[in-house]
Order: sequence, then structure tokens, then C-alpha cells
Amino acid sequence: MSSPEAPTRPAPPTIGVFDSGFGGLTVLRALVQRLPRARFAFLGDTARLPYGSKSRRTIARYAAQSAQFLVREQGAEFLVIACNTASALALDAIQDAVPVPVLGVIEPGAAAARAASRSGDVLVVATDATVQSRAYSAACRALGLRAIEKACPLLVPLVEEGWTAHPVTDQVIRIYLDELNAEAAAQGLRPDALVLGCTHYPLLRPLIERAVPPGVKVIDSAESTAEAAMRLFNGRAAQFAQSTGPETEIRCFATDSVEKFERLGSRFLERPVGSVELIDLGG
Amino acid sequence: MSSPEAPTRPAPPTIGVFDSGFGGLTVLRALVQRLPRARFAFLGDTARLPYGSKSRRTIARYAAQSAQFLVREQGAEFLVIACNTASALALDAIQDAVPVPVLGVIEPGAAAARAASRSGDVLVVATDATVQSRAYSAACRALGLRAIEKACPLLVPLVEEGWTAHPVTDQVIRIYLDELNAEAAAQGLRPDALVLGCTHYPLLRPLIERAVPPGVKVIDSAESTAEAAMRLFNGRAAQFAQSTGPETEIRCFATDSVEKFERLGSRFLERPVGSVELIDLGG
Repeated sequence: MSSPEAPTRPAPPTIGVFDSGFGGLTVLRALVQRLPRARFAFLGDTARLPYGSKSRRTIARYAAQSAQFLVREQGAEFLVIACNTASALALDAIQDAVPVPVLGVIEPGAAAARAASRSGDVLVVATDATVQSRAYSAACRALGLRAIEKACPLLVPLVEEGWTAHPVTDQVIRIYLDELNAEAAAQGLRPDALVLGCTHYPLLRPLIERAVPPGVKVIDSAESTAEAAMRLFNGRAAQFAQSTGPETEIRCFATDSVEKFERLGSRFLERPVGSVELIDLGG
Repeated sequence: MSSPEAPTRPAPPTIGVFDSGFGGLTVLRALVQRLPRARFAFLGDTARLPYGSKSRRTIARYAAQSAQFLVREQGAEFLVIACNTASALALDAIQDAVPVPVLGVIEPGAAAARAASRSGDVLVVATDATVQSRAYSAACRALGLRAIEKACPLLVPLVEEGWTAHPVTDQVIRIYLDELNAEAAAQGLRPDALVLGCTHYPLLRPLIERAVPPGVKVIDSAESTAEAAMRLFNGRAAQFAQSTGPETEIRCFATDSVEKFERLGSRFLERPVGSVELIDLGG
């Protein structure tokens, strides 16, 4: 029997955050800013990354296994798919695989572009698989936007090499954006927003903002996804507010290369990731 | 009963060639040049690439499964591990997993450096996992060479982006080689050979040859591995010579992304790769 002085207060719900690697820590960072007393379980399926160059069938299988780990083993009550490729290619498969609300990054990114754009024409940069899925184009079209997408496969390796403020990265970004702008112009579009359609890209935001034409707003889908998550969690807001959680509680899991995750992850999360637990999803 | 006019001649042995991706097609190309009438089965474990950023345990499991496919399902009588990372981290595991001779790329690369170097000091460029394994350093040391290694993680994505003659790639190569040369100088070494310790790098050979200091020879481990394979096959030379195979027979298999393999593979093989068969190794 609990005394009136120490009423039992509910534990905060656990929010599962999933990515193929650790780029999704940029989404976790945005969530932590908004829910400082929540409990998070982050899984990076690092043994099988990058998803960006794999087929839809393979990505769906990997993502469903990862989502099941977060829900069944970690008790996640909400899932945020902090991976553009998995959101683009496997959101349905994940929703079928687990009985909790699942939020991807594509629709929040498109919604933020809709809010930012006056012309209705937007640019999207992403991995090869995300672009080939045409998921951003579809999500934008559903909101009355015209989107033009470009795969930028060198940007993830450049971020992982730590060259986030390097002249080579600046050149690569300008080459990709020049090609994208030329393509937009050829189609008669007048884009005024650029969606960062990969969770690694927020680390390149300063270089990208210098490289976009004047008047083009840069949309970080990590930020817009965290905003969308807040709306999704709204019914549980009281529980978050009253929870006994002292400080943010974050547990990080990876399927491989824990050392690399620990070494690079803090750049994405902007705080130490602590020790990362190695798990085996098979395969 | 066969008539004397048409004596039964042995079929050529099948040589299995394995890589995590399709970079190992540079090794297959070198093998085909030397054994134009042989039969080859090439497997790229593209669903699980890149091996270069994964742990030894994971790489060993993946590579053993792949080797077993080539031997059990394709009847390979020899295996060439055309992947530096798998050779560096999993050669023992592969040899334990299959009952046929297995040749990796590390020792042939080191032997070619031994033949080329007068100073006894050599440079090695490779993926992160290959460098961390120190396999080239050990193989070089066993031959009386001092090796200094550098991970160059941007070079594979640059090759896969098709930027094999691009000014950005030229700059990246010069940055990596400047760092490597500075490190060698700091250790008092006088290197006169550079081993390309990744099967993607032969596509960058022209840029690399322009970037190395004068007097430094560039060693392509694909070529030296094919030479070593010829010595390994020597006892079967007559069978290769007499075989009824009309032309080179190549079957290519991949665990994912067959389309990308078919699109990019011909750059590595320098001939059409034909249709690539999708297989499932689980996971």
C-alpha cells in the first residue's frame, strides 16, 4: 500500500527509435529536446547497413525484425522510424509487424516543406534507395507540392569520414545541388525549399545552407519528425509530464560495430551515447 | 560407348570467386585473362555489404556461408576470396568451412610488393576493416617488409558513384596519400611500393599513379592474386588446357541489388556481366 506522501506515478512510456545505422540519432536528439523526461530505446541495425543500396524486400524484412525487437524486447509503445530508406520502403511492413503506432520521417518532411514553400516546388536530397522509391514525390504530391529528388550517395560516407566542414564535401554538395537545380530549371520548377531526406544530412546543414540559392529554405526532417511525434504522443502528454523519470533515459542497441557507433554517435546526438549494447537479430 | 572420333574430355573445373560486393570482379577479370576456357561462379554478397565496416565475427559468418554456396551449390573446386576484408578477417573461417583450396588476396598482394620493393618499405591503402585487421602488415612483415597502412573509406563510394576520373576523386586520393606519406616519413620509412588493398581501387589506378611520389610502384592485388591462383591451379593445368569449354563461362550470383550489380559490374569486369542470379543466404 503506497502512502499518500509517495503516490505511485506512472513510468514514462518508452519510445522506440530505429535506424539502419546511427544517423537516426539526429531524430532522437530532436525528440529528446522536446521530451526531456521520456525513456528512449534506439536501435541501429549496423550489421546490415546501409539500407540505402538494398532492395525493398530485404529492407522490409530487416526493418520488421528491428521494430519487433524494440516493441517486444524493449517494451516500446511508440515507434519512430528515423531512417528515410526504411520509411520510404518499409513503413507498411513495419506497421504490419508491430501493434503500436509507427511514425516515419517522410510525411513529416513533406509536411514541413508544404509549410515552408510558397511556390509549391521543392527539392529533395536523399540516398539512392529513398529516391528510387519516389516516396517523397508521392508524399509531396499528396500535399499539392511538386518535388524533384536527387540521390547523393557520397554524402553519408563524407559525414562518416568526419569531413562535415571539409572543402571536398563543400564541392560535392555544390556539384549535387547544381545538377538538381539544373534539372528543376529544365522542368520549369521554381523551388524554394530543400528537404534533407537522410538522417545523416543535418550534420551538413551549414554547408548545404551556404550552397542553396538565395530564398531556398532547408528543411531538416529530423526536426519535423520530432514535431509530428509530439502530436502523435499528445494523448499521452500527461503521462510524460507526470512521469517519475529523473532525466532522459536512453538505451542504445546495435547489431554490429558498437565501437564505431560509440565513437561517431555523439556527433549526431550532440551528447555522449554511453555504452551501446550489441544484439543479434540473426542473419 | 563413345566413338574414337569423339573422345570424352573432362569439363573444366569450376573456380568460385567471392566478394562482399562486385569489386572482386577486378580479380575475376584478371583470372579470365589467364584462364579463358575455365568456368567461373562469382558470388557478390550484396545484401550484406559493405563488409569493410563490420566486425570480424560477422564477416566470418557471412563469408563462410558464401563460400559454402559456391562449393556445395555451384561445385567450385577452388575458391578465390576476391575481397580484402574477408581475406583479412575470415580466411581461416572460410578454409574451415569448405573442403577445397582457398586463396585470399592479402598474401599475393604482399608477395607482389616484396618483388617490387627495393627499400623494403611499402604503403597499403584499404578499407577501414582491412586496415584495422593489420593483415597486410603481418603478411608484409613475414616477407621482411615494413608496411604502413591507411584506411580510405571514401574511395569505394567514389568508384560506385562513377567518379573514377573526377577532380573530386583526384583531391581525395591526394589528401589520403599526403597523410600516408607524412606518416611514413615520420616513421623514417622510404616506401617505394603502394599496394591497392581493395578490389575497387584498380578502377582508380590512373589517378593513383599520378598522385604517388616518383619511384613508387602501384601494386594491383587483383593481378597478383590471379598469378597466385595460376600457381595454385598448376596441377590441374592439363585439365584446363584440354577442357571442352568453348569460351569462358561465367555465372554471377548476388544476394541483393541485382540491377546495380548488372549496371556497375561491367566496369569492373571490362565485359558484360550478363544476367545476375539472385540467391538468398538467409539473414
